Amino acid sequence: MTYEQIILSHIKTNNSKIVLLILDGLGDIPHPDFDYKTPLEYADTPNLDRIAKKSMLGRCIPILPGITPGSGPAHLAVFGYDPIETQIGRGVLEAVGLNMRLKANDIAARSNFATVNEKGIITDRRAGRLSGDKADILCELLSSIDEIDGVKIKIKPGKEHRFVTVFSSDTRELGALCSDTDPLHEGAPVQKAAGNNPSSQYLADIVNKFTDKGMKLLKDKFPANAFLMRGFSAKPRIISMQSKYKLEAAAIAAYPMYRGIASLLGFSILPSADSIEELFEIYRENYNKYDYFYIHIKGTDKTGEDGDFSGKVQCIEKVDSALPVLFDCMPDVLCITGDHSSPALMHSHSWHPVPVLIHGKFCGYDRCQRFTEQDCISGGLGTFESKYLMGQLLANAGRLQKFGA
Amino acid sequence: MTYEQIILSHIKTNNSKIVLLILDGLGDIPHPDFDYKTPLEYADTPNLDRIAKKSMLGRCIPILPGITPGSGPAHLAVFGYDPIETQIGRGVLEAVGLNMRLKANDIAARSNFATVNEKGIITDRRAGRLSGDKADILCELLSSIDEIDGVKIKIKPGKEHRFVTVFSSDTRELGALCSDTDPLHEGAPVQKAAGNNPSSQYLADIVNKFTDKGMKLLKDKFPANAFLMRGFSAKPRIISMQSKYKLEAAAIAAYPMYRGIASLLGFSILPSADSIEELFEIYRENYNKYDYFYIHIKGTDKTGEDGDFSGKVQCIEKVDSALPVLFDCMPDVLCITGDHSSPALMHSHSWHPVPVLIHGKFCGYDRCQRFTEQDCISGGLGTFESKYLMGQLLANAGRLQKFGA
Repeated sequence: MTYEQIILSHIKTNNSKIVLLILDGLGDIPHPDFDYKTPLEYADTPNLDRIAKKSMLGRCIPILPGITPGSGPAHLAVFGYDPIETQIGRGVLEAVGLNMRLKANDIAARSNFATVNEKGIITDRRAGRLSGDKADILCELLSSIDEIDGVKIKIKPGKEHRFVTVFSSDTRELGALCSDTDPLHEGAPVQKAAGNNPSSQYLADIVNKFTDKGMKLLKDKFPANAFLMRGFSAKPRIISMQSKYKLEAAAIAAYPMYRGIASLLGFSILPSADSIEELFEIYRENYNKYDYFYIHIKGTDKTGEDGDFSGKVQCIEKVDSALPVLFDCMPDVLCITGDHSSPALMHSHSWHPVPVLIHGKFCGYDRCQRFTEQDCISGGLGTFESKYLMGQLLANAGRLQKFGA
Repeated sequence: MTYEQIILSHIKTNNSKIVLLILDGLGDIPHPDFDYKTPLEYADTPNLDRIAKKSMLGRCIPILPGITPGSGPAHLAVFGYDPIETQIGRGVLEAVGLNMRLKANDIAARSNFATVNEKGIITDRRAGRLSGDKADILCELLSSIDEIDGVKIKIKPGKEHRFVTVFSSDTRELGALCSDTDPLHEGAPVQKAAGNNPSSQYLADIVNKFTDKGMKLLKDKFPANAFLMRGFSAKPRIISMQSKYKLEAAAIAAYPMYRGIASLLGFSILPSADSIEELFEIYRENYNKYDYFYIHIKGTDKTGEDGDFSGKVQCIEKVDSALPVLFDCMPDVLCITGDHSSPALMHSHSWHPVPVLIHGKFCGYDRCQRFTEQDCISGGLGTFESKYLMGQLLANAGRLQKFGA
């Protein structure tokens, strides 16, 4: 019996409310230019400090020690889905990140423009990191191929050289076990897609025809005279939050990627807003309608990835000053954490454990004085894999039955 | 190779003595009415303090984060049995808790009186929580059906509306894969039992005949005019402590449930006593006869479940003042812990990690000054699943060989 199975078979329901506040990429490491402090240590956070003293702190390991997660697995883990067993395909993640709605039989692929030489050999897999404007025009050009053998093709531009291709059919099953046309390195030609079973081979044939036709259209568009596809995937068959935990879950998130992931898991997607206060207001307005609220703040990750230490500090301070709006409508269980770390010093996601705080009537408490990486090391929750977070929130909310007699 | 298999294949023997002192339900959370302290923090414990300074402390997670265990799985874990893989059936646990001896071919079922309406629909699964006296009389009435088709039926009353039914046969195998007659909710009729294989179907037929006959006897006994059975189970086939660890294990416990669990694991059951000093005296008297002593104190759990903070403090203080009796005959390895937490504030078992202390010649030590939840957070043993406790006790006792060369 896995942990997920234990949770699944021990759920009970009540009227409690749970809020999971995710500061994306929150965790960090000390920065030599800022007194060797982390953004959480450097920031002025009177409200976080106040709640930290009355909470249980600790650290989450998103996947396993040393493993740096992408946003997909990191989010799956905090929602209690095993991030190694449960995977969302790359194509699908990209599609939901661009706000595309996928149907059950749709197959999405990460796609990008590339450069090939006169022999058809790839010389740049990113077509010189094409600007968005040019890519938009080329995507429109490719969009003129909107159907092949009855299979509909939809294209949506992403950032720079990236776009998403979605294949749909109302009449034939499309299989996702289709190999990439992207060789993943320069010096090779665009690959022929091949399917691992009849329905995937059917898709592969369409993919290859689309590649041939599309490359002809792009022939004179150097450096974007080719395109590559990878990560063919269908909407995953994931048990919804509602079925898994017998609770109504709502997502409050400004960015499409996170609204998309939440929507794949069956969350109700609430309206978004620009400011953090407004996101918290949306929670307050919907307090009676849902049991579990996921509130997503993107700024901490964006600044972390940009190496913008001060920006990350400011984002944390903005969250802190908005917290009274949330505290005024305190849920039974409040959890503040990140999905992963994004140290400003590293300009990227990282494997470092993420500070976590659980506040509730039965959370207990520890000696931690502030919600910082340093304090969380000696927090009462200890250091645990993120996939165990949801179980602890449910336990604190009185939503789990006893295991065995 | 599982942890259990590693332990099993690396056992060596010597003359060391191990004592596992279980204060049932020991772990707790700060209580607002008692200076936000836990019972362990609030209690005056000079002897525990003294040993804590010379021990390694830490915290055990009985099952997995957020999972609240029953007494069965919590005990299996501290004895080094995987509490998720190894399960003791509900019927068996109830039977041993009532001091019933089970033979290999016996099947036990948790049973309780219930109320049905004139249409046979269950209106109260607990018959208004019948008083013990009335239940005793009704159990005696049901006991008049002591045999059906050669299968012997034994009944023993438990608390309130509960009793245990044991089916035995000297001639036919009885299977435990028999479905409950209890629908687990009101509004449905008493269910027909059904077996999953021939020997279980044989039992199911007996169970159904017993239900029919019994319900006729109870016809006029409203509100206890029906009874329900669930958790049909046989004595589990668990490898004994003796075979597993090549040591002679003895249990010193006053409560039938814990004597019962120990007996299922092959412990020798030593005489019991009323006071904690006397339990420790029994250990001293038997010191030379066994290698491993499990001493069980119930008071901490009982007071925790009753929400009696002061009672829990007093029980801890009683254990503390009795400790010199145990210290006078110090084993090579002494472990003091609980099987799970039972916070007084929650009036129930909980998922909170349990303080644990290991004392021995090679235990090492940490900076902890007292044996409290707070100190244990930063203890040298860290926070680990209870199923790893036994391995650490064996290691400290020099009873484990090196793994690999």
